[in-house]
Amino acid sequence: EAFFDYLRGLDCSDVEVYAIPEGSVVFPKIPLLRVEGPVAVVQLLETPFVNLINFASLVSTNAARHRKVAGKSKTLLEFGLRRAQGPDGGVGASKYCYIGGFDATSNVAAGKLFGIPLRGTHSHAFVSSYMSLDEITDKSLRRKDGSSTCEDFVSVVQTWLSKIQLLNGVFGETNQSELAAFTSYALAFPDNFLALVDTYDVMRSGIPNFCAVALALGDLGYKAVGIRLDSGDLAYLSCQARKFFCSIENEFGVPGFGKLIITASNDLNEETLDALNKQGHEVDAFGIGTYLVTCYAQAALGVVFKLVEINNQPRIKLSEDVSKVSIPCKKRSYRLYGKEGYPLVDIMTGENEPSPKPPTDGVVGVGKCWCMFSPACQVGERILCRHPFQESKRAYVVPQHVEELLRCYWPGKSGKKRETLPPLKEIRERCINQLEQMRPDHMRKLNPTPYKVSVSAKLYDFIHFLWLNEAPVGELQ
Amino acid sequence: EAFFDYLRGLDCSDVEVYAIPEGSVVFPKIPLLRVEGPVAVVQLLETPFVNLINFASLVSTNAARHRKVAGKSKTLLEFGLRRAQGPDGGVGASKYCYIGGFDATSNVAAGKLFGIPLRGTHSHAFVSSYMSLDEITDKSLRRKDGSSTCEDFVSVVQTWLSKIQLLNGVFGETNQSELAAFTSYALAFPDNFLALVDTYDVMRSGIPNFCAVALALGDLGYKAVGIRLDSGDLAYLSCQARKFFCSIENEFGVPGFGKLIITASNDLNEETLDALNKQGHEVDAFGIGTYLVTCYAQAALGVVFKLVEINNQPRIKLSEDVSKVSIPCKKRSYRLYGKEGYPLVDIMTGENEPSPKPPTDGVVGVGKCWCMFSPACQVGERILCRHPFQESKRAYVVPQHVEELLRCYWPGKSGKKRETLPPLKEIRERCINQLEQMRPDHMRKLNPTPYKVSVSAKLYDFIHFLWLNEAPVGELQ
Repeated sequence: EAFFDYLRGLDCSDVEVYAIPEGSVVFPKIPLLRVEGPVAVVQLLETPFVNLINFASLVSTNAARHRKVAGKSKTLLEFGLRRAQGPDGGVGASKYCYIGGFDATSNVAAGKLFGIPLRGTHSHAFVSSYMSLDEITDKSLRRKDGSSTCEDFVSVVQTWLSKIQLLNGVFGETNQSELAAFTSYALAFPDNFLALVDTYDVMRSGIPNFCAVALALGDLGYKAVGIRLDSGDLAYLSCQARKFFCSIENEFGVPGFGKLIITASNDLNEETLDALNKQGHEVDAFGIGTYLVTCYAQAALGVVFKLVEINNQPRIKLSEDVSKVSIPCKKRSYRLYGKEGYPLVDIMTGENEPSPKPPTDGVVGVGKCWCMFSPACQVGERILCRHPFQESKRAYVVPQHVEELLRCYWPGKSGKKRETLPPLKEIRERCINQLEQMRPDHMRKLNPTPYKVSVSAKLYDFIHFLWLNEAPVGELQ
Repeated sequence: EAFFDYLRGLDCSDVEVYAIPEGSVVFPKIPLLRVEGPVAVVQLLETPFVNLINFASLVSTNAARHRKVAGKSKTLLEFGLRRAQGPDGGVGASKYCYIGGFDATSNVAAGKLFGIPLRGTHSHAFVSSYMSLDEITDKSLRRKDGSSTCEDFVSVVQTWLSKIQLLNGVFGETNQSELAAFTSYALAFPDNFLALVDTYDVMRSGIPNFCAVALALGDLGYKAVGIRLDSGDLAYLSCQARKFFCSIENEFGVPGFGKLIITASNDLNEETLDALNKQGHEVDAFGIGTYLVTCYAQAALGVVFKLVEINNQPRIKLSEDVSKVSIPCKKRSYRLYGKEGYPLVDIMTGENEPSPKPPTDGVVGVGKCWCMFSPACQVGERILCRHPFQESKRAYVVPQHVEELLRCYWPGKSGKKRETLPPLKEIRERCINQLEQMRPDHMRKLNPTPYKVSVSAKLYDFIHFLWLNEAPVGELQ
């Protein structure tokens, strides 16, 4: 009971949290967060922080990888809610995929919560819920300009379907359930007609049915949006659909019909996008779900939370695996930029070491970041950057620009200035911009050049002093 | 606005939901849920149902697979919250891993919400937060029987450590930060001393420090619990630790010391458990996180929601991929059991077909399930079970016992009897029992015999009639 009273009395007023701004490109070993405060309170924060950061970082990264393969010109839609790992797995995925470079989500809750653009299409069930055109009772549709009303839109659709069938001479009967569903959808949303065309057969039924309805809408001044393909050979079908749209544009003189949007979905991931690119395709927008939101290729990220200093005493956690040895001390971290504007190396220093100095006139345009001018100094200071564990890996760096990475997001009652949390859209822009700023060889998929993460000479010496101090010396017999 | 009013007025009173009881073993194609009601309402339920069922089923299955590899005698602890895909990914994982056969979780919130047993150990940070034994101010510990108080428990620990060092003659100095942390932990929880022994060095520091504290506790009538290994070669270290515990039991005459519990963790999964089994190990309990809760080996399950009937009209969704063709009609599903008590085959029938009949005296003990006796019939009826899509795959089955799979969990206002939701523990027992009831060749890891999922002859004919009816006939030139 006393323990519960103790817990009840806890708050975070004695805690300070420093973090790298959300949407930043980050590298292993550089702390994402520095949390200072009473050890018991800070320990209680460990699991929530690690849980919240791990999946968010993972799924943003996964979204950015999908964007990189798809290319800038494509529209990327996150369609993953039904396959996500629980409801807030889904909502979180929608948010962080948007940050990572997706354009919209089909998750209405996430759209409402975070202001993410919403996009979606109707379902297969909508199509198969119709039996025939007879089920459509109100067949009238007002022209877009409001000048008159077409009393029998269904007949207009049927007339177009006959013309299309004559034009191609290869279609048997298309599926009437599907035609009824498309017609009904168009009557309800004449400005937003996007049809899912693979419920029965894409080329024999879905595409001609869609075109008939789209052409009928065109007669009344509306412009259809396009189609979604959700199965089959997406490269082949998208090319066939494009060809068909173009032939209609030419034969019937309907400008723009060839450019109708083709959306593709169906278990897409980085590999299938890459394969589609290689085969050639006519897809304008990709709807990606399962592989995106569950991070199927790597379902977990290994962010950890380590004690690095207590009562001003630096602490280290050792491990048989060197990559799991923690870097002791309350630290600062900086990103050093080179002449060409690319980030060169990240460096960690002790809290009280002087910060790396860029030349006073050498600031490159890297968006919002802290620029630390040293008025006395006209060239950037030469700094020795050391690999934290490999003695011989060292480099001198003269930075053109220095960005301090950790900023104060929770000052507790310290009175320090607290960074404002930018709106989601700015975080997304930061993420996209930072990814574009990376030197391309760090970003290539196969054998990327590792980005250098280093420590100052002073911190290097201290790490290894502490390591030897804490590791017991064996006695072999 | 009218649409929002419409949404506001919706409820599920016209909806009926039938489901296979939670914790059942299920197979592809057999509906997990049958949802009946107005199409618009039922469509709104699609995404929540699919989201909630997919991850829950996936992670339970993953837990059951881990249990199968680890064996019944081991304690399995779910340690995944920090790596789970979002907070409720973590809470959901804890719940469904318990159902799938885990024994406990380190997720306190899930323990409180669902009554799952809680288990955990201290962290590396707890160890490294100590510097030396001088930090322990209150060194007194009352004997377990309350008869007296030891005023300097720290000295008792130090004395034991010297004896251990003499005994083995191979230890240099152990890590004093670690010794202080263990001692402090034991003073706070003398009945629950479980030490994480790999912060600095398992064999040179963690194990001797642990043993010194455990022996000191023993002097005062307490029994230590054991150790946790979180890095390194778990097979080797667990065997070394066991050997060390046994040598202490023998040398110092401490009965039971050799049987102290060894818990292992560190990125465990089915493969590493299997490898540990093959190498031989002395681990009693496994703490499994990342690979378990994120279902790393397969991060998503493909449960879908299909329209099968509307206005008494059966509907089908076709696909170029036969496995994605939906099975039309409002259906019933049954599990047919054979003579040996194993499930033989699942069969789907139309809603109004007569149910398969077991012999009146042939009920085998399969726990709680609906037994449908046919008083007129002394042997089970011979039923033709057909593969839904492959014409030649058929079998006659004479069931010894028949279990209807779908039960009513939400009757809406239909007045039907509603199944009660059993407590979590019963669901877990159902799951474990059902898995044990499966014929072993269905359950083996490599090339398991596929379990048969079938349809009645009548349903088979109808599926194929509807398929031909809906699929457009091509015209090749």
